[in-house]
Parts: sequence; C-alpha cells; structure tokens
Amino acid sequence: MKNTLEPLEPKADKATVRRHNLSLVLRAVHDEGEATRAGVAARVGLTRAAVSSLVEQLLAGGFLTESGKTFSGLAGRPGTALRVARTGPAGLGVEINVDYVSVCVVDLAGTDRVRLTEHLDNRDVPPGEVLARAARIAARTLVSAAEQELRPAGVRLALPGLVSGGRVRQAPNLGWNRVAAEELFASALRAPGAPPLPVGSDNEANAAALAELWFGGPAAGRDGGEGGGGADGGGHDGTGGGGGERARSFLYVSGEIGVGGAIVVDGELLRGAHGFAGEIGHVPADAAGPECRCGSRGCLEQYAGQAALLRGAGLAQDAGGPGVAELERRAADGDVRALGALERAGRALGLVLSGAVNLLDPDAVVLGGVYRGLMPWLGPAVDAELARRGVSGLWTPGGGRLRGASSSGDAARGAAALVVRDVIADPVGYAERAGGR
Amino acid sequence: MKNTLEPLEPKADKATVRRHNLSLVLRAVHDEGEATRAGVAARVGLTRAAVSSLVEQLLAGGFLTESGKTFSGLAGRPGTALRVARTGPAGLGVEINVDYVSVCVVDLAGTDRVRLTEHLDNRDVPPGEVLARAARIAARTLVSAAEQELRPAGVRLALPGLVSGGRVRQAPNLGWNRVAAEELFASALRAPGAPPLPVGSDNEANAAALAELWFGGPAAGRDGGEGGGGADGGGHDGTGGGGGERARSFLYVSGEIGVGGAIVVDGELLRGAHGFAGEIGHVPADAAGPECRCGSRGCLEQYAGQAALLRGAGLAQDAGGPGVAELERRAADGDVRALGALERAGRALGLVLSGAVNLLDPDAVVLGGVYRGLMPWLGPAVDAELARRGVSGLWTPGGGRLRGASSSGDAARGAAALVVRDVIADPVGYAERAGGR
Repeated sequence: MKNTLEPLEPKADKATVRRHNLSLVLRAVHDEGEATRAGVAARVGLTRAAVSSLVEQLLAGGFLTESGKTFSGLAGRPGTALRVARTGPAGLGVEINVDYVSVCVVDLAGTDRVRLTEHLDNRDVPPGEVLARAARIAARTLVSAAEQELRPAGVRLALPGLVSGGRVRQAPNLGWNRVAAEELFASALRAPGAPPLPVGSDNEANAAALAELWFGGPAAGRDGGEGGGGADGGGHDGTGGGGGERARSFLYVSGEIGVGGAIVVDGELLRGAHGFAGEIGHVPADAAGPECRCGSRGCLEQYAGQAALLRGAGLAQDAGGPGVAELERRAADGDVRALGALERAGRALGLVLSGAVNLLDPDAVVLGGVYRGLMPWLGPAVDAELARRGVSGLWTPGGGRLRGASSSGDAARGAAALVVRDVIADPVGYAERAGGR
Repeated sequence: MKNTLEPLEPKADKATVRRHNLSLVLRAVHDEGEATRAGVAARVGLTRAAVSSLVEQLLAGGFLTESGKTFSGLAGRPGTALRVARTGPAGLGVEINVDYVSVCVVDLAGTDRVRLTEHLDNRDVPPGEVLARAARIAARTLVSAAEQELRPAGVRLALPGLVSGGRVRQAPNLGWNRVAAEELFASALRAPGAPPLPVGSDNEANAAALAELWFGGPAAGRDGGEGGGGADGGGHDGTGGGGGERARSFLYVSGEIGVGGAIVVDGELLRGAHGFAGEIGHVPADAAGPECRCGSRGCLEQYAGQAALLRGAGLAQDAGGPGVAELERRAADGDVRALGALERAGRALGLVLSGAVNLLDPDAVVLGGVYRGLMPWLGPAVDAELARRGVSGLWTPGGGRLRGASSSGDAARGAAALVVRDVIADPVGYAERAGGR
C-alpha cells in the first residue's frame, strides 16, 4: 500500500553515493553469508566493475575477507568467495534484567563470540550501582573480545522497561523511574584516558525479538518441536504464512520476572509513537485483579509472570532461575500443582494473546524467556484460548503459529547485533570513528 | 531504524521514470492544495523544466487545472497556481454496514461531491441481496457523478468484517461467512454492455481511519471540543506528539452494531499478516463474559457495542440510529440510566483500550461511529481507565490524546479516497484504462 514516491533523479554527490553503495555491498555479503562479486552485482543492481571497486575498499578496511581465489589474477576474480570478516568490527550487547546480567560480543556475521552471564538480584539496588556492575561485566568481555581481535563499534543496553531517548522512563520490576541509563553506563565503562564507546539502549523484549527474527531457526511447530503442544494435527487453511516458514510478522513475549513483549511487522520492530510499544505484560487480564507494580490492576504479569507461576506451583515466588528449573522438573514428573499453575498461567496468557492477535493479526506468536522451556505444559492452554477467541479462525490448535523461541537468540545477542547493523549501514562511519580511537 | 538500501544508480527506462514522476508531481499539487511549478520543483527535487513538461501532460490529461496566469507567455509561467481538477478522475466508496449503506463520490482532492445514505437492516438478508442493493444505491450516485463530470476510476467497498483478497472471511454482525463480496458487487453494478468498474474492498474501520487521517481536523481535545471530557487540565509532559497536532499514529475505534478498529502507524494502516488487524471489538474485556457472535466470550462488543449501550440505558437494543439519538438526548437530560450505561460501556472500552495502548503506544485514540456523539459522557470513563492503566504515564485525563472522530471523514469517504490515491499513484494507468471505457 505504501507509495514510494522518491524522485528518480538523485543528485547525491559521488562520495555519498559511494558510502551508500559500500553499505549495500557489505549488506549483500552479510545477508548471503557467502557471495561472489558477480553474485553481489546481480543482487544489488550495480555493475561488476563498480562492485569490484567497492569490494576492494571493504577488503582493505577489514570488513570482508575472501577465499578460494580459483581465478586469481583475472579481472573481477569471479570464483572468489566473499564473507564478512570474523575479526575487526563487532557489537557489544548488555542485557540487564531483574535477576541477571548477560553480556555478548558478536562479530559482523552476528555470531555470538563472547558471552558472560551473571545471576544476581538487581531489585532494590540503586540504578547507578546496577549499571556500574553491568559495566564491569562488560569490561571483562571486552578483554576477551580484544584477544579475539574483535573491536566493538558500540554498546547497546537491553533493559526490562520503557526505554526512550537514552533513558529508562519506567522499569517497574527493577524499581527504576527516569534513569539516565546510557549516560550512567557509559561513564562507568569508560577506562581512564580511553575514548568512550557509544552507548545505545533498547527494551529487552525488542532486542530479543530481533534476535529471534535474525537468528531464530525455522518454526518449531511444524516438525513436532517445542511449539504448540496439542498434537491434534495442524488445520492449515491456506491463508498464507503460518508456522511453516520463518515468520516476518510476529508477536514476541518474553517471560521473566516481568512479562515483556515486542511486535515485529514485516521484519521491522513496531516501536510505537514514543518507543513504548509491546508492553503486553501490562495488558489487563482481569479488570478487578490484583494490584500490579505499574499502578494498574489485573495485568497479565500478575497471572503469568515468574512469581505467579512459582507461587501457583507451591514454590517460593522469589526462587528465580533455580525455581523455574524446579517447576520444569515437577511438571515433567506430572506434579499436579505444577501442572495446574502452568495451565492457569497459560489460560491468562492465551486470553491476553487472543486480544493481541485480534488486534494485530500476526503470523505467529513466539514465547521466549522462561516460557521457552515451559512450552510443553504452557503451550496447550495458550493454544486453546487462541483457538477459542481468535476471530480470524487461523489459530487452530497445533497449527504451528504458536511456538517457543529459538535457543539461538536472546536480548543480549539482539542488542549486540543492533550495533553490528549500524556498522553495516555505514562502514565508512565506523572506520572514521575507529580511526579516532 | 529502517535502512533504505536501494541502489543509487537506477536503471529504469525513460517511460517508467516519466510515469513515476508524473505521479510525483500530481501528488505534490494534491498535498499542497495549490502550488506553482517552481514550488513543485523545489518540493520534489526535479528541475523546473522537467516539472513544467510533466505539468503540461497532467493539464492535458485533465488531472490538473491552472488559474491566475499572471505571467502568461513567459517560460515556466511562475505565477500560475496549479490545483487538482474538480472534474474528471474520481473515486467511489461504498460502506455497507449492519443498518445502513452509505455511498460517496470524491474528486481528486478527496472532496465529498455526491453522498447517498440509506438506513436499512442488512441482518439476516442474503449477502448477494445486500450487495445488489448497495450496487443499486451506488448506480444512483454514478448518475449524479456523471452530471458533475466526475468519472470514478473504481469502487472500494468498506465492510464490517475481516476482508482479504476480495472476500469477506467473516462479518459476524452481518452473519456473513466467506462471501465473494467484490465479485458479487461488480456483477450487480455492471450495466449491460458497459465495461466494468474495478472493485476493491476493505474493512470499514480501516477506511474510516484513513478518512480521519486524511480529512480529520486538528485534535479536538486541545480546544475544549468533543474530546476528553475531564476538564481538569492537560498534563502534557513533553514526550512529543500528544493531542496538539494531527496524530500520524493512532488507534481508531468505530462504534456501530459491532465495534471495529484500525491501527494507523506513521500515516499508514497496519493491516496485519493476513489483512485482519484492528479487531478490537473482539478483544476480551472479561474472560467469562457473555457469548459473542464471533464464538468467543466477553468480547468488548458485548459491553460497548450499540446493543449493549441501548439495552443498558433501558432502550430497545435493536433501536438503531434513532435509539442512539434518544440515548444522546437522555444523557444530555441527565437520565441516570443512560449515564450509567455510558459509564459502564466507557469503562469496558477504556479497559480494552488501555491494553491496546500499552501494546501499541499510539499518539492518540480516536472514537468514531456512534461514539463520536456520545463522547461527552463516554469520554471521561475511557479517559479514567487509560490514565489508571496506561503504563507509560502519557495518558493523563483531559490530556487530549483521547478524542472523538472528526465529522469530516467516514468509511465511505475513506474508501472513495483510496480509489483516488490509486489514480494519483499512477495517472498514466488511469488514462489508459479510462481510454478503454
């Protein structure tokens, strides 16, 4: 529906065009994984000669590597395989959640190269202290990254709250309110005398959803993996999409202490008018339900957050990761209380998700965080509500539209990959900034 | 965030470039309302000479008119005011709702030039008969249009249900299920021997939301109009947007027999993966509520649809338009039952809207259909729920983000304007097709 009405006589100067086209070529190789100059030329619509010249600059800048020079010496070297470099430009992602900090360094290909996770309780700790702690963890990964000859272009924080303009407006489960997170983190990370790394920030569910989009495997529902649960056959009805291929439009829900969410439409995040979209944890499940830390009542979080799940199963609601592992174990053993808690949480989740599905019409719903491991017991209840309440009739139980998140992406990796995306969008800018460091 | 990585060396052939640039110029004049050649050139980034040549073709084709040739005879005629033509290319919009059919012809400027509305009960009437009836109404407006020298390029139907691929998948309140609406309408409209008008279709709330986007006045909340209700001062907090200017990202809710919805993000409809987004009427307000025609329980429609409103006020739930007028009169008179019904419906609407706002983070919520006239009594309850449950803190009562729809747009006009948008996107295509008719 979108009319692209840009004029077709661009007047950009040569340097701008070249800068843009360097990004175009780098992105083509990145997206293909491996490509020849000829393949890149065909894909991007530039001449072979133009692509060859751009590739030389990207090789010299350390953005690309090549191998298998079967036709070495000939103009254009048609048999040479190009790949993005495994050393050099990189991204650093830092997820700060309620009960852990996870830091990840990815290379240009988005591969997770360094990972450091520390489980600790960030509640009721002053934000500055939490961010300083996270900066210390990040600094350790930078040492490992340097050993692997990776040079992060910047840091992206992933935070469980409303994030906009470098600040956390609200993160109820951390107890944060209007915290200048980027600034605090940047000054904590900065080594004396060293130039600063640019710091960005995002909502953690947004970052995790992008990781799912970019690194998630094919849908699990189809091949009897962890998705769906109900094994009563997928009533696919031909309206396209479905669980068969990787969805480009999906709703991502991240179960942690809080319940985060993100909306992906046609391969892009829907961020909302102020950057606050996706807060499914604060969609009401019951108007008169229990009070929520956000100030409202009966929010989904009160029914399907980690505390509600653990409490419902007779476990300590603050038992954290070990508590969730115990819940999984008990559910696998058929413990009635555990199964009941998962069924109730699944119903609440399904109720709210059915509303979100009717509102947004996504191709799929992906459950991440602690929900991923709990899918065998949570999934059927969610599926049943979606089938019962989905107005389109597309949400048949076991139809593969509901699935657990892939294990290959998380918020830290998504955040790190966002940094890399910026490098790919402007390699010249990266080189200029790296030269200054 | 979106990276636009199109190559900067377009190889489009000359005819394609010209066709594209004709649209660019036509759209520039359309959007400006009135423009000079020099103004268009500055706006679209083409040379004066190129624009002049394109304008000549658009004048000859009857897409533009000019007046005030103060410098007539000089090259480029700098003082000439261009406008889109008031005759010629037009759009026909046909809204088929549960208790009325409304047909509208708009000219290239989007101005409502012919309007015919008939109130009738379309429930329990076979779909083919409803569509044939609508086609007869449409045919009458075509006669009026011809008298005004307007030639519709096509028809767009606006229907209260899930619409995709020319068919209505489901329209619970009409009792329609998998109806080939476009085909049925086209064959009913077609005069013997005459070439057919292309027929498209859309959801009625989508069409109404576009009308609001394109023709809605500035936000009503700011100047004490029909928006908001609570007069306790707007706590604007500087996070941008707000009710002050026309919102480009908003949630539109249309109260009729059913409750329709549409999501506008950055000036474009969010249609969903299958075209079914926006069904806010079937977002659950209470998991255990009354059965809904869609097969679920406790949908918003059961609490805030026209029937629930009228019933709650002690009026016949099938009283239709006159019933709504009576409800308004009673509310204005301070009738306790009417006020109670509006307060209850407003609470349910606010509950569901708060979830949608937390999920989507729009700049504004616009209430249309019967809600528009009921805003003084419905608004405060909706506002209170949004303030209580909105996690961002941006939804302060009376802050102007909640407002009644403008009176200048509706689904029929939006649908007709969609036809015109297609003409503007490709005037050459229109001329070619019109030549064949």
